[in-house]
Amino acid sequence: MNAPAKFDDLEVGFDIPASVGMAEADIQTPCLVVDLDAFEKNVRTMRDFCRQMGVRHRVHGKMHKSVDVARYQIEHGDAVGVCCQKVSEAEVFARGGVKDVLVSNQVRDPAKIDRLARMPRLGARTIVCVDDIANVADLSAAAVKHGTTIECLVEIDCGAGRCGVTYGQPVVDLARAIDAAPGLKFSGIQAYQGAMQHMKDYDERKAKIDIAVDMVRTSVDMLKAEGLDCAIVGGGGTGSYYFEGNSGVYNELQCGSYAFMDADYQRINDKNGKPISEFVNALFILTSVMSHVKPDRAICDAGLKAQSVDSGLPYIFGRSDVEYIKCSDEHGVISDPQGVLKVNEKLKLVPGHCDPTCNVHDWYVGVRNGKVEVLWPVSARGKAY
Amino acid sequence: MNAPAKFDDLEVGFDIPASVGMAEADIQTPCLVVDLDAFEKNVRTMRDFCRQMGVRHRVHGKMHKSVDVARYQIEHGDAVGVCCQKVSEAEVFARGGVKDVLVSNQVRDPAKIDRLARMPRLGARTIVCVDDIANVADLSAAAVKHGTTIECLVEIDCGAGRCGVTYGQPVVDLARAIDAAPGLKFSGIQAYQGAMQHMKDYDERKAKIDIAVDMVRTSVDMLKAEGLDCAIVGGGGTGSYYFEGNSGVYNELQCGSYAFMDADYQRINDKNGKPISEFVNALFILTSVMSHVKPDRAICDAGLKAQSVDSGLPYIFGRSDVEYIKCSDEHGVISDPQGVLKVNEKLKLVPGHCDPTCNVHDWYVGVRNGKVEVLWPVSARGKAY
Repeated sequence: MNAPAKFDDLEVGFDIPASVGMAEADIQTPCLVVDLDAFEKNVRTMRDFCRQMGVRHRVHGKMHKSVDVARYQIEHGDAVGVCCQKVSEAEVFARGGVKDVLVSNQVRDPAKIDRLARMPRLGARTIVCVDDIANVADLSAAAVKHGTTIECLVEIDCGAGRCGVTYGQPVVDLARAIDAAPGLKFSGIQAYQGAMQHMKDYDERKAKIDIAVDMVRTSVDMLKAEGLDCAIVGGGGTGSYYFEGNSGVYNELQCGSYAFMDADYQRINDKNGKPISEFVNALFILTSVMSHVKPDRAICDAGLKAQSVDSGLPYIFGRSDVEYIKCSDEHGVISDPQGVLKVNEKLKLVPGHCDPTCNVHDWYVGVRNGKVEVLWPVSARGKAY
Repeated sequence: MNAPAKFDDLEVGFDIPASVGMAEADIQTPCLVVDLDAFEKNVRTMRDFCRQMGVRHRVHGKMHKSVDVARYQIEHGDAVGVCCQKVSEAEVFARGGVKDVLVSNQVRDPAKIDRLARMPRLGARTIVCVDDIANVADLSAAAVKHGTTIECLVEIDCGAGRCGVTYGQPVVDLARAIDAAPGLKFSGIQAYQGAMQHMKDYDERKAKIDIAVDMVRTSVDMLKAEGLDCAIVGGGGTGSYYFEGNSGVYNELQCGSYAFMDADYQRINDKNGKPISEFVNALFILTSVMSHVKPDRAICDAGLKAQSVDSGLPYIFGRSDVEYIKCSDEHGVISDPQGVLKVNEKLKLVPGHCDPTCNVHDWYVGVRNGKVEVLWPVSARGKAY
């Protein structure tokens, strides 16, 4: 919906980094490039896993913030809808035609609650997380005011140390309050173990998720004993989806990074002690060498404004002879000990952390066979409210 | 120029975080808030310093990326124009009415060179940096093609270890080539010592800048001996401007962060060993508490998508009882040992690094006396090409 009606109105190099049909070599840098074959492969891989396990997949739209990417995941990856973290972001997906949207987060501000309560009118099933009984009355009042239904998941803190109540009785208490509140519907549990996703060792991750699964199972059973069924038991990420998928308790996964991948997720190991390999690099920061005065050091045009370095520097895809070693606002310093790089040479960087990197860009340039095939706006970019 | 014609068309909480006249308490978070009194004071302080020293100030627009902020700095701060780092960014300033724009960086891509050569037609004096003789022919050909003049500064690497030639003879050689090239004008030297700006100790910074000043002085003298005058000897940042301003060689400062300030610049000391105090905090990330299940830990709504943490986490302005201790994509974890924070309470975060933090937001909300006075678009946000 944020995509302009006509791409022809947009200037390459000012409004957009490329135009459809252009050779990959002519793309203006720095920008985000999506390898469409790789992206589609990742979507298929996750779809096949979910089919095999018999679990649903609600893709995490907060990773890519793109209606077009979400639609592809729904149409070709069996995704039931999206989750995302902010109301303004959810509105972008709902306005863009996504019919099932979970705000996998707390919504407390009165203005935001009001917006959320209006969201079903955009045609989208609207679900939100709750971790405080005081929130139930506010959500209920807004839903009643607008004549809509907000579905609520009780969020459990299963190890992330962020939002969420303690498992067990507090979950039941909150679920009962939701169930009794006009305009609200109790729809289950949100239990995302965010803190373990990036642990390198498989067994360490498994140990953490085993604890989470126990908490969730206990809570689901206690709710059931009260007559409260969990339509959704949601959680799981790229570093853990096989655990939740195999748990027999979770029925909805919420993976984001798998579709694009990043350097940080590639550092975690599978059960054989090897870096995970089921998902391939589909997202790159395309960058150009812009200065090479010192023979062993090239300067490229992608710095802090083309990426987030919270999870470390990017690496240069497919190259072991050169290394991205330092970063300032608009510059990247590349060690080039053999002096092989040329000015204007393009390199593909694999970002350290895809989510906040996508959030600084306005466009994804989709490429296949060396040609620009599609431009997708990062339609919810900056939607942080 | 990127500002919409009518703010009335924009939805608060979706398109914009606030509306003019709104109480500060009603601003939708997370967003950037500018304390207008503090911002104006910073602009006056730098203006008065430059007047006293008799040096020009070319404000660094790459920090704020806002035509409105630049215009204020020009109209009220004596700024002669802006510098910025990218051609697409420079075009935003030129289209926005700034008449004197320096791209304080290398421009090598043919499409970007072509855009740069067209920029004088927007009514802006157009200046660029050069550190490679091969670039001179390309810039010259583009300027001739478009019938324009591109002014060129030879960039010296005076300690930043990024772009730039070695001082002395290489500067003269490059200046001569520029001087001889049709469509180009040799206009001086760019010598920004970026690596020392954030060193805590005043004497350590001074030692680094003394080296830079010597390099620049030697180069200026050698150029003079060849009949090549430097209209511009530019450099200096918020951590060093008093050194360059007092050098007797630099005639144009290029400060950016001074206008807004950030946590990282507040960690550097003045000559008395105290944190610098001439510039005050004018930029904040306004955030709200959204969850407080654990009595000693509050969760706020500003995470990695509301800021860059490359220079460390933000601190909470005016509060010593609570501390921002951890950050994920959309959440900030706040230590609240006495449990004083309430859900929906707003806090002002001072970002670790202002430049890349501004670059994730679309709007500055200007506040004075508890009211929203103005909304400024971050007009060159995402202009990284």
